[in-house]
Amino acid sequence: MKILMIVVIMAMFQEAEPFINRLGLQKIVSNLDKQLPIEVFKGKVNESDVVLIVNGKDKRFGVDNVGTQPATLSTYLAINNFNPDLLMNAGTAGGFHAKGADIGDVYIGSDFIRFHDRRIPIPGFKEYGVGSYKVPDFDQFATDLGLKKGIISTGNSLDIIPKDLEMIKANEAVIKDMEAAAIAWVAELYNIPLITLKSITDLVDSKKPTQDEFMKNLSLASENLQKKLIAAINFCAGKTINEIIDRA
Amino acid sequence: MKILMIVVIMAMFQEAEPFINRLGLQKIVSNLDKQLPIEVFKGKVNESDVVLIVNGKDKRFGVDNVGTQPATLSTYLAINNFNPDLLMNAGTAGGFHAKGADIGDVYIGSDFIRFHDRRIPIPGFKEYGVGSYKVPDFDQFATDLGLKKGIISTGNSLDIIPKDLEMIKANEAVIKDMEAAAIAWVAELYNIPLITLKSITDLVDSKKPTQDEFMKNLSLASENLQKKLIAAINFCAGKTINEIIDRA
Repeated sequence: MKILMIVVIMAMFQEAEPFINRLGLQKIVSNLDKQLPIEVFKGKVNESDVVLIVNGKDKRFGVDNVGTQPATLSTYLAINNFNPDLLMNAGTAGGFHAKGADIGDVYIGSDFIRFHDRRIPIPGFKEYGVGSYKVPDFDQFATDLGLKKGIISTGNSLDIIPKDLEMIKANEAVIKDMEAAAIAWVAELYNIPLITLKSITDLVDSKKPTQDEFMKNLSLASENLQKKLIAAINFCAGKTINEIIDRA
Repeated sequence: MKILMIVVIMAMFQEAEPFINRLGLQKIVSNLDKQLPIEVFKGKVNESDVVLIVNGKDKRFGVDNVGTQPATLSTYLAINNFNPDLLMNAGTAGGFHAKGADIGDVYIGSDFIRFHDRRIPIPGFKEYGVGSYKVPDFDQFATDLGLKKGIISTGNSLDIIPKDLEMIKANEAVIKDMEAAAIAWVAELYNIPLITLKSITDLVDSKKPTQDEFMKNLSLASENLQKKLIAAINFCAGKTINEIIDRA
């Protein structure tokens, strides 16, 4: 089956803006409830429809709905309203310099996507908390598109504390983000393939405060992200899933 | 408008079981997608329909889908499938002994429901992360039903680490749970009143490991919970929202 409907999920409008402009996506009035802050944009790449879902803004605080709760809802709505052949989650993230990450690098999530802030020390619940959602092998895809590969670990905080760091290390992660594992959970429930692209705004293992680096590099990272995202969409649109996943 | 449809959201089947048995709720095949693990039960109290939504089990790990991501999805589905006049979230939780909580106490969430594990140190995002979803005044309701009152703080971990403790204290919380703030977020988006009942399985400020206390007291706490939950439903069914909220 050909990939004719790609839905991209992004948390922040600022992350999405260069992508919207470059592809000329149009904001649509969707079927979604008016009560929801979610914004939907639509366009076409080759023969494939491309829908972008952005979490929208919090009414009380006026900031983007980042984190795993809005990401869960957006993914459910993406699947149920647009029936995607392929989901993509694109966004900015922290990277570990010791594992090869630099500011502005774009990574594709590999191997597993995991949580680092769901600590439930009861057998079974412990593993459920971490999640470890399996990612297909995109090695050839990553090479062709010039993407670095790494395990993504997700938590609801932008800062880093010793316990999160310990969990991220146990997760063998190179990338720390705030949405991917929640999106991967819903995608897994519906058995929809997910490609995750993360552009590095800050180095978790540097001494600089995450929030300062994040704000400073958000625009560069979002620009780099849109280039790789558009290349990825061009690569996938009209192909079959089997054509983009490595065969053993 | 009378309360004729009450939807109760619970995370774990074991928490819900005494309630299901006591009210004789029947499992229904709902409109929900087959892919979703969520289970739905239905019954009637006086003239009001009562729907119970339980998050269901994780397919890979066989444990209940606890935490804020499943709670977000269940709340969205509760609202969109059953159009409730009133939402209730009932479950077990940790309590602070120093603030008056004891094992087996049942609390009603008061004042605000907050997150303690969404630390985003950027102005606006900081407050968004904590959430502070407003709870109406249920003082008379709490007195009539013999419920203790307290602020609930939500995070995705069962254990307690110093940073979470610091955030929970800043949140002025008496109760530490794993779902309420996510449910409150979605309820707020749809402007649906939410009553939150939490039964204490463990004391966060004791020396005993949370997981041991949780397992030991889950059954007692769930039993106490169902008594208060049924009393609360009896109190609310057929009344108007204004009749159960204190007027200044």
